[in-house]
Amino acid sequence: MKVSRRVKPLNLNPDRLFPAEPTVRGIARDLYSEVANLPIISPHGHTDPRWFAENDSFGNAADLLLVPDHYLLRMLYSQGISMDALGVPRLGQDTAADPREAWRLLANNFHLFRGTPSRMWLDWVFAEVFKLDVLLSAETSDFYYDTITEQLQQDAFRPRSLFEQFNIELIATTESPIDTLEHHAAIRASGWGGRVITAYRPDTVVDPGFEGFRSNLARFSELTGEDALDYDGYLAAHRKRRAFFARMGATSTDHGHPTAATADLTETEARALFARITSEQVTPEDAELFRAHMLTVMAGMSLEDGLVMQIHPGAFRNHNPWLFETYGRDKGADIPLATDYVRALQPLLTRYGNETALTIILFTLDETSYSRELAPLAGHYPALKLGPSWWFHDSPEGMRRFRQQVTETAGFYNTVGFNDDTRAFLSIPARHDLARRMDCGFLAQLVAEHRMEEWEAAQLAHDLAYGLAKKAYKL
Amino acid sequence: MKVSRRVKPLNLNPDRLFPAEPTVRGIARDLYSEVANLPIISPHGHTDPRWFAENDSFGNAADLLLVPDHYLLRMLYSQGISMDALGVPRLGQDTAADPREAWRLLANNFHLFRGTPSRMWLDWVFAEVFKLDVLLSAETSDFYYDTITEQLQQDAFRPRSLFEQFNIELIATTESPIDTLEHHAAIRASGWGGRVITAYRPDTVVDPGFEGFRSNLARFSELTGEDALDYDGYLAAHRKRRAFFARMGATSTDHGHPTAATADLTETEARALFARITSEQVTPEDAELFRAHMLTVMAGMSLEDGLVMQIHPGAFRNHNPWLFETYGRDKGADIPLATDYVRALQPLLTRYGNETALTIILFTLDETSYSRELAPLAGHYPALKLGPSWWFHDSPEGMRRFRQQVTETAGFYNTVGFNDDTRAFLSIPARHDLARRMDCGFLAQLVAEHRMEEWEAAQLAHDLAYGLAKKAYKL
Amino acid sequence: MKVSRRVKPLNLNPDRLFPAEPTVRGIARDLYSEVANLPIISPHGHTDPRWFAENDSFGNAADLLLVPDHYLLRMLYSQGISMDALGVPRLGQDTAADPREAWRLLANNFHLFRGTPSRMWLDWVFAEVFKLDVLLSAETSDFYYDTITEQLQQDAFRPRSLFEQFNIELIATTESPIDTLEHHAAIRASGWGGRVITAYRPDTVVDPGFEGFRSNLARFSELTGEDALDYDGYLAAHRKRRAFFARMGATSTDHGHPTAATADLTETEARALFARITSEQVTPEDAELFRAHMLTVMAGMSLEDGLVMQIHPGAFRNHNPWLFETYGRDKGADIPLATDYVRALQPLLTRYGNETALTIILFTLDETSYSRELAPLAGHYPALKLGPSWWFHDSPEGMRRFRQQVTETAGFYNTVGFNDDTRAFLSIPARHDLARRMDCGFLAQLVAEHRMEEWEAAQLAHDLAYGLAKKAYKL
Repeated sequence: MKVSRRVKPLNLNPDRLFPAEPTVRGIARDLYSEVANLPIISPHGHTDPRWFAENDSFGNAADLLLVPDHYLLRMLYSQGISMDALGVPRLGQDTAADPREAWRLLANNFHLFRGTPSRMWLDWVFAEVFKLDVLLSAETSDFYYDTITEQLQQDAFRPRSLFEQFNIELIATTESPIDTLEHHAAIRASGWGGRVITAYRPDTVVDPGFEGFRSNLARFSELTGEDALDYDGYLAAHRKRRAFFARMGATSTDHGHPTAATADLTETEARALFARITSEQVTPEDAELFRAHMLTVMAGMSLEDGLVMQIHPGAFRNHNPWLFETYGRDKGADIPLATDYVRALQPLLTRYGNETALTIILFTLDETSYSRELAPLAGHYPALKLGPSWWFHDSPEGMRRFRQQVTETAGFYNTVGFNDDTRAFLSIPARHDLARRMDCGFLAQLVAEHRMEEWEAAQLAHDLAYGLAKKAYKL
Repeated sequence: MKVSRRVKPLNLNPDRLFPAEPTVRGIARDLYSEVANLPIISPHGHTDPRWFAENDSFGNAADLLLVPDHYLLRMLYSQGISMDALGVPRLGQDTAADPREAWRLLANNFHLFRGTPSRMWLDWVFAEVFKLDVLLSAETSDFYYDTITEQLQQDAFRPRSLFEQFNIELIATTESPIDTLEHHAAIRASGWGGRVITAYRPDTVVDPGFEGFRSNLARFSELTGEDALDYDGYLAAHRKRRAFFARMGATSTDHGHPTAATADLTETEARALFARITSEQVTPEDAELFRAHMLTVMAGMSLEDGLVMQIHPGAFRNHNPWLFETYGRDKGADIPLATDYVRALQPLLTRYGNETALTIILFTLDETSYSRELAPLAGHYPALKLGPSWWFHDSPEGMRRFRQQVTETAGFYNTVGFNDDTRAFLSIPARHDLARRMDCGFLAQLVAEHRMEEWEAAQLAHDLAYGLAKKAYKL
Repeated sequence: MKVSRRVKPLNLNPDRLFPAEPTVRGIARDLYSEVANLPIISPHGHTDPRWFAENDSFGNAADLLLVPDHYLLRMLYSQGISMDALGVPRLGQDTAADPREAWRLLANNFHLFRGTPSRMWLDWVFAEVFKLDVLLSAETSDFYYDTITEQLQQDAFRPRSLFEQFNIELIATTESPIDTLEHHAAIRASGWGGRVITAYRPDTVVDPGFEGFRSNLARFSELTGEDALDYDGYLAAHRKRRAFFARMGATSTDHGHPTAATADLTETEARALFARITSEQVTPEDAELFRAHMLTVMAGMSLEDGLVMQIHPGAFRNHNPWLFETYGRDKGADIPLATDYVRALQPLLTRYGNETALTIILFTLDETSYSRELAPLAGHYPALKLGPSWWFHDSPEGMRRFRQQVTETAGFYNTVGFNDDTRAFLSIPARHDLARRMDCGFLAQLVAEHRMEEWEAAQLAHDLAYGLAKKAYKL
């Protein structure tokens, strides 16, 4: 493009994210050089399997990079920019803003992202995927929009091609038990070599507060031939769908509850509760108790079928009622809550915590639990491991706090490597690269302070970037 | 003075508070050099408007710098020094300790403040305002007392002169609705050019637990000509006083509640509650509910009249009953509490959170809410911004934690620059300087780690030191 | 030993734990050089007085260093290694694993401890006490086992000799009121010059939930000649045993409650409660209230007899029921809980917080309380001081967070130096050395950032390593 004085270059510094002190930086650089090009293991995320099944073009810059990204939407919205203007359609409406105009809003307000991981992820995508060498700004908005949109029409930018260029060894998506997994089946039938697997996320049929819970159970019955409105049938339906998911590659389940509460009800209690939560009116207490009970039931099934269990608690979903009613879920209005694990998990752990054949991976949005609760729990119970710093904490400072607050009590080997947890497919390499850099920087500091030998740090850098994820998720 | 071997020099190192690593320090120094001399915007604080109205001498060293400073009182008291000896008068008594003797207690125990912001603020005042070049200690106590007290008698050390020397562009004080604002009126009438404005702090007439609540309401009626014991009259009285405060320069309100609870009652519920809280006996639950409801009402009035709303929750006031009964408020016995924002603010945010014309600035004494609650909330709701690290956290490490824990989710532009929040007038430049240095150090680290470009950091340093406060507070 | 290529050297770098930046490191080194060889004051811990009374050999490597160390057991157990294999006997059984085989499990899994303080403590013991110069690993396991076990048979490795070599000026153990203190008596009668004192830990007779509470009270009666099932007799029994403990050197009491709850009951309420908690069935609420009341009673007795009071709240003991029933207490299954101090301590503080003759030392497992609650409380109440970062937080990062979050509000002089709090006798010098290094590193950073003068840091380094513990614990 024609470069004006207000246009700034876009450079990804090879030392980015490494500590500034030269000795530490030198060690970090050495550690990173050994792991920078390892294949990507993405054991938990939200990419759409349809992309890999159909391998269509991703469309235009805004529809790919802006509209589906709740990190971007939330920040722009917080500064007074409407969802409408950003191209987010209102529920029940098809019309949305012109994508070029929406993109201009991102470009004009790109300074809002200074110091955020979104900025680092996007800059990586712009520089590495689209070979852009100027910074996004009002001046470069159209140039960006056109350059990206044009490239997206090329074969090299289709999903499968990018998957291969990104050196992805495996990616897991997340589906509901009432999903048919047709795209996964299509991927497998296609002969394409990319390894895309599913994960079993039963919130739709476990959480009585989920939209359409009762119709979800009806669908659950249809898909399994079981009567999912009967407790025995309901459990049998889970077993059947878990087995089906496992045949479609799943090695894990995922549970996105508002709290970490678990319960271990008797058969009689469970049956009575199930009758109540499948009735017309469900109390919040019963809904919570049923979710709690089902975590323990799911852990039992994991012990049977070997699926790794992930628990992602602690989000107040849809905190903004007007936004939710107008635009739906996942627009940036989910807010973390203080989350107890010690008392909440005790029923499940009393039943299954000593099982060495079981793996439960815990995540948190409440960083205060790292050193107080999660590291002590994972540093004791054989069944527990800790997932990486998650969502709002999937960031340089968030990762640093995670390692600083977890390692001394849980060590590195009760953690499971990195999850990108994203639907922003193009940013996946950026996210893994960021995690690798931060882990190498953390290890380098330990080496420089003579708290670890460099050969140990090199082993760990490899484990954190690759080995632990494969092992923990049985990949 | 005659310098003995035990007397140590007092130096303010030009690189103080910058990170030690030479590259980072160099960047910090460059950034700071551009903002060091910007005018001071002090949009929230507790200086006494009488000072600027009457422009009298500040008196002696102890009465100016020790007795009113709860940071100093609390630390000395914690080490067994009595309030009496420090010159704090008992309620209902006039006699206080000899100020020179009180000052000696500070001097003899100055080592207690090592590593605290009080030490840095005081050293700045001693060196920059009073040109002292030896450290405060037992040996230099009387020299200090005399030097400071003598200078305070000079015209150059009167309030208005210091205001000008300090390069203060604007300072806001905080007054109750039942304050007549006579000093503000006098300042305006005086022809002096210093810009001193008020802020509307209605706790005296909003908090049923406030000392003299019912008599405050009587006074509220008198001042407004409304019947403030009737709900409609009460709301009308607020509107009138808010308008009066706005005419006296106010651009903001301030709410110092024990919790962040908000409620959005119906008219009927509100009237019934108002009847209860204006009766003889008020339950703690009703008091809390009324405060909660009034935050939402005040937000609604802010949307009408444009006053920025500040919420300062989370202090357990007067934790030490004996101290409170003997010496009164603000003696260092207020203790922070764990504070929920996510559920507490939802009623208000559901009503007004999406209003782009409203600004609500949140503060916290509970640092765990930075990354878990406040940054996610401010990074979503258009009406919310985050105030700087407050009170106990108005300190180098406190500021660093604030930026580290807030920025990645809320960015810089959902924050509002620095507040000194102080009645210690002479320390105001020291406090702003400390904040500017810490912000430049934080930005310098981002630049050195290639997480931000230096030209972006330079813009941000200016915004954090000056621009954001002006904009957020509509100054 | 024969060194294979897979055997790595063991070196303790003289700069270990100091910040990497050369200027800061140089200052840290200078500060440390002045405190490295100060005698060890160990005012709180769990060594067995029998060791010093009988001065027998410590046995073999596994029985000394592995089986009693809950830090090691928990980490190995968390990775699927059974307590049986580690040599932990089941309750009621004598047989345990072969210690050499148990040691091999530690050796084979030593990588699990990378980045943990256990690794640093053990490496110090191996290098400094046993003069080993290769790293523990599968290859060196038997060499380690034999080398350590052989040396333990030598006189130089008996408890008293190590006590002297370790330059321990004083060590406090912790005993229950129903302990006879016979070993302490024997130490005193022996003529040996090592100063070993006890501390009064009354949980066995204060906590109605303690195993054998009622039989403990019977024993309490026997030992004191008081009727400890009568409230007056119970209080008199405490007074007598406290006096006896003080005669056996005790300068402190210690209280390990699940929460920090305190209460200040009337005589009538207390008598009624005492009747309930000494009956057959005790409710959890009554048990909690009695513990709470007794903290206030104990504070009152401390004001009488001068014993320093330590409060260690916030552990959920024996979180894993199967493990507890099978192997008993202290196997690594105690988990921290979120802990309130502000409201919980108010009854006690209202009664005794302003007493300058009383010292109460608070500990926490909930780091969120450092800046929010503990520093503000200790920075105000004359009776309060803060214990060092404890248990899971007795670690480099834990200590750094403690200083960073406490100092700006409470200063250094409301803290009490270091506690090793350990039964791992051989690691005591390693633990104190680690604390001294971390404190010197913290101070060095303050000096390098010109937030403190170097001569002040030198005074503080000495106080933190030695002086504050002696003073706070009246030693």
